[in-house]
Amino acid sequence: MKANIMYAAGDVRVEELPVPRLLEQTDVILKVVAACVCGSDLHPYRSMHPHEHGEGEAMGHEVIGKIEEMGSDVSGFKKGDLVVVPFAYGDNTCPFCQEGLMTSCEHGGFMTGCQAEFVRVPQAQGSMFKLPDEIDEDSPLLPSLLTLSDVYGTGYHAAVMGRVNEDTTVTVIGDGAVGLLAVLSAKKLGAKKIILMGRHKERTDLGIEFGATNVISERGEEGVAKVRDLTNGEGTHVVLECVGLKPAYDMSVGIVRSGGVISRVGVPQYDEAAVGFESLFGRNITLTGGPAPTRAYMEELLPDILDGAVKPGRVFDVTVDLDGVPEGYRAMNNREALKVLIRP
Amino acid sequence: MKANIMYAAGDVRVEELPVPRLLEQTDVILKVVAACVCGSDLHPYRSMHPHEHGEGEAMGHEVIGKIEEMGSDVSGFKKGDLVVVPFAYGDNTCPFCQEGLMTSCEHGGFMTGCQAEFVRVPQAQGSMFKLPDEIDEDSPLLPSLLTLSDVYGTGYHAAVMGRVNEDTTVTVIGDGAVGLLAVLSAKKLGAKKIILMGRHKERTDLGIEFGATNVISERGEEGVAKVRDLTNGEGTHVVLECVGLKPAYDMSVGIVRSGGVISRVGVPQYDEAAVGFESLFGRNITLTGGPAPTRAYMEELLPDILDGAVKPGRVFDVTVDLDGVPEGYRAMNNREALKVLIRP
Repeated sequence: MKANIMYAAGDVRVEELPVPRLLEQTDVILKVVAACVCGSDLHPYRSMHPHEHGEGEAMGHEVIGKIEEMGSDVSGFKKGDLVVVPFAYGDNTCPFCQEGLMTSCEHGGFMTGCQAEFVRVPQAQGSMFKLPDEIDEDSPLLPSLLTLSDVYGTGYHAAVMGRVNEDTTVTVIGDGAVGLLAVLSAKKLGAKKIILMGRHKERTDLGIEFGATNVISERGEEGVAKVRDLTNGEGTHVVLECVGLKPAYDMSVGIVRSGGVISRVGVPQYDEAAVGFESLFGRNITLTGGPAPTRAYMEELLPDILDGAVKPGRVFDVTVDLDGVPEGYRAMNNREALKVLIRP
Repeated sequence: MKANIMYAAGDVRVEELPVPRLLEQTDVILKVVAACVCGSDLHPYRSMHPHEHGEGEAMGHEVIGKIEEMGSDVSGFKKGDLVVVPFAYGDNTCPFCQEGLMTSCEHGGFMTGCQAEFVRVPQAQGSMFKLPDEIDEDSPLLPSLLTLSDVYGTGYHAAVMGRVNEDTTVTVIGDGAVGLLAVLSAKKLGAKKIILMGRHKERTDLGIEFGATNVISERGEEGVAKVRDLTNGEGTHVVLECVGLKPAYDMSVGIVRSGGVISRVGVPQYDEAAVGFESLFGRNITLTGGPAPTRAYMEELLPDILDGAVKPGRVFDVTVDLDGVPEGYRAMNNREALKVLIRP
């Protein structure tokens, strides 16, 4: 089968590999129907060092697929079922999963190898979410449904952890797919003022359609000042940080209102940051967020997609087949594409 | 009048000063009935550099007093009323105060000069909390009522911000007055497992009376391992960090359960700390806390003190008059005293 392997920064190759086999009886093998390239895939695409033995990494952690083969411990599904899989799989029975935190599952891990014809899903019974029978692989809703795997669930996690509601003002930092879907999520949770910080007009325009009430292209201290101008000098109750770089953290501190929340879903590319009296403590700022347990949100987010109330799949602006994935990485990395959909 | 002034590390002096006067019509002058030395007063007591002009700082931010003189803008109180004042005063009308965050009041600040015969209270109407008529200055409840000014309210703030409830396990770091009252607060909010980390037996014994179910004297990695031993390897849902030093922060990260909360009320003596994937983000840890808006908790915490259900005043183990304050600092700094009550 065809699969996309990353060997080093800028080096993604389509290769011929054996179809994956069941390794555990809790596994399922999916035929990939839709996958995509994630903003977080761009981190290794920019920085990965070649492995000394020439080994690469099977890329892709977002997938909708058709069940091809099931381990004997998987029940409640059948061959041919169309399912969406969260980027963080888990058993969905351990105490952490029961609390909605599959990203800390005792038997959990992160999906890999979805940018391929077939993929193995560990802990499949707990992880897989069956799509309604009326959805088939040609459904126009498929791109939106695929966002349940990661980016919509991640934006929603940011908003939930940030305790967004109808009384909170919100700033979203980042106009990537997660940032835009954080806007959509803040809107869904009732926020009336949603300030989107981003500098790519075609993206922020989509952000406005998703619910952003203001767009700010400035960064750093200028960006902070602009947000304060819009909020009576106070800053916003919530900051959804969807970038993961240190300057975005520092900007969050500048933007957040006293007593407010900084909710991070951009994977931090730094270890230490300001948390002392001046930055967080003195103003009772809460810092929260982390990898999104997207499986836990699927039931809740599905209906609005099915009835067309939201169209998170609009973040996909380029579609490729498996041979086109390396070009998809290049385009996303150069910001020519917002998010690349893969239809094998 | 007598007042205690700190000039440098280890240098607190009783001096004769003029009785403070009203500076604003929103001020009140109190005759101090009870005050105390705070654990946070020990930070300057250990580190304060002498001022080049020989000026000192009027110490003390916790007080119960009798109204001696009122500005014309203060209503709803009368001369002779016995009131407790939060260490962070405020107007109690601005948006932040209305949200319960007087520590971010637009007209707020921190009390000073309570270790004296008289003290000026700014923003007095919003800040003062009138004690019930049956309480007079000889009431045996006075020490417990004084803890509403700071240490009980601060321990309670830690627990509230940490979202302690009957389903959460809790670790309290620190066996000072705030740590012990964080134990009492966690108990009040229903926590069934409360692990107290401290190494002074007479203090941790009081912690047990306040509700601690386990005491751990180890620190650092050993301390972390002990907490994990007690919690099925997981750590506790909530960590109440009542120390403020970097090692206590790092220990909190090691102790907190995935998806849990670190709530800080110990004033951080550091600016930067670990917040990256390994420490907070990867496990969806929330970091919260800050200076406690103790005024906001007084109505809620008063009844249990009045009916004797809780006795937070037990943290006071030494009583001095104003002349005895310098000795009180010395004793607290040497850990001969837990908390020093001042009766002028």
